[in-house]
Amino acid sequence: MGIPDEQIHPVATGRAAETAAQHQTEHTILTQFCPFNQRVWIALEEKGIPYQYREVNPYKKETHFLELNPKGLVPTVGYKGKALYESLVLCEFIEEAYQSYEPSLLPADPYERARVRIWIDYTSKNIIPAWQRLLMAQDKDKQGAARQELYEGQKKLAEQVKGPYFLGENFSLVDVANAPWAPREYILVKHRGYDTEGAGAKWRAYTENLCERDSVIKTTSDPDKLQVIYDRYLRDEAQSEAAKAIRAGRPMP
Amino acid sequence: MGIPDEQIHPVATGRAAETAAQHQTEHTILTQFCPFNQRVWIALEEKGIPYQYREVNPYKKETHFLELNPKGLVPTVGYKGKALYESLVLCEFIEEAYQSYEPSLLPADPYERARVRIWIDYTSKNIIPAWQRLLMAQDKDKQGAARQELYEGQKKLAEQVKGPYFLGENFSLVDVANAPWAPREYILVKHRGYDTEGAGAKWRAYTENLCERDSVIKTTSDPDKLQVIYDRYLRDEAQSEAAKAIRAGRPMP
Repeated sequence: MGIPDEQIHPVATGRAAETAAQHQTEHTILTQFCPFNQRVWIALEEKGIPYQYREVNPYKKETHFLELNPKGLVPTVGYKGKALYESLVLCEFIEEAYQSYEPSLLPADPYERARVRIWIDYTSKNIIPAWQRLLMAQDKDKQGAARQELYEGQKKLAEQVKGPYFLGENFSLVDVANAPWAPREYILVKHRGYDTEGAGAKWRAYTENLCERDSVIKTTSDPDKLQVIYDRYLRDEAQSEAAKAIRAGRPMP
Repeated sequence: MGIPDEQIHPVATGRAAETAAQHQTEHTILTQFCPFNQRVWIALEEKGIPYQYREVNPYKKETHFLELNPKGLVPTVGYKGKALYESLVLCEFIEEAYQSYEPSLLPADPYERARVRIWIDYTSKNIIPAWQRLLMAQDKDKQGAARQELYEGQKKLAEQVKGPYFLGENFSLVDVANAPWAPREYILVKHRGYDTEGAGAKWRAYTENLCERDSVIKTTSDPDKLQVIYDRYLRDEAQSEAAKAIRAGRPMP
């Protein structure tokens, strides 16, 4: 038996492939198709930071990848020869290491910064795990329960959205944390009975705004190529660390 | 039936009660005995920030508490009449809102700051949930599995500890994130077969250093009083949000 999922090399396609092709110099981001990677990619694009895009298959631990990050996790950012990982830590890092790059993705006021972090934390603990559980659930009852949890989580966040983005006109890290899942909602609509009105009109408007954001469009792969990857999740056969965590009822890595 | 756990008012005792008595003015921290609350308390003590200590029973939603934080979660920090919550968000907030207070609990270099956040994230996802699962597990097999997970998580963090603290001489937010559980390890030793050498000598030395830190000593309640609270967890009867999350295989709130 080979490495699980090795044959599915999750390469960027469509607009994401074009953007990747334009970024082959300077700071390195090691990444692949997955939404956690896209967060970091969106943050780099929003701020116009020069970066080199290197695609890796996380299931295949290639030498150039392991040399930089022995843990073999993506997204990895190579910075002055050292590796950093964890998508949300990387988003904060991008803000702090490139402060001269506008716009800032965090407000200046400490109270407002803390509010942004509270809702990022909320996204990580409530929205993303419910999304992933719904995607992977095989029986109808479990799908129904996960769908309700997802709607409730999304509704609660939507109540805080000023519009068009979380803080109003300024795109922030709350938007970065949620954006990669917006152009992926069609998977849940098609296969898991997800209703785009299920979390209410505010959530729907928010995800539409996220989908139309330039940095999101430029980093989203073709829907038909994403579908191939998601088929493994829909059959509950995916072997990614995220998939294993959901199956075991553990925090997503 | 009353509110669950209402009769167990988790008040600060011992050294923690003395420290609380000295802090009855200025910024508010709404808190109780639990380790997540103690993180925020340690951060305030480390930096010498003036604060008012107000103890609340999170199971009893009292008016002064709900007025500040309608969500009724602890720890809550009241800042200029507005509420913030989530222990790790609060620790970052304390750093950012009180930058003139020394020492800083985060290094200045962006790469080092990101490394601190990676290991805080690691603590939240791997060490604390395993601790809590071991505490609440009723059968021997589950206890054994949780104990192994806990040892492995602690060992992996310990490998990164320069000593005496995570970054060396400077106490940082990684230490704050882990410290409250150090003086609570005796509960696992007494009731869950936890061996203080199980995670290796480096972890043992690290927790000893944390236990001896002034800010930790000053915010730790009496062991016999903590025992009363932990009895509910040891019998798997606790009704806190953290306990319910562990039971349901969900991320801890």
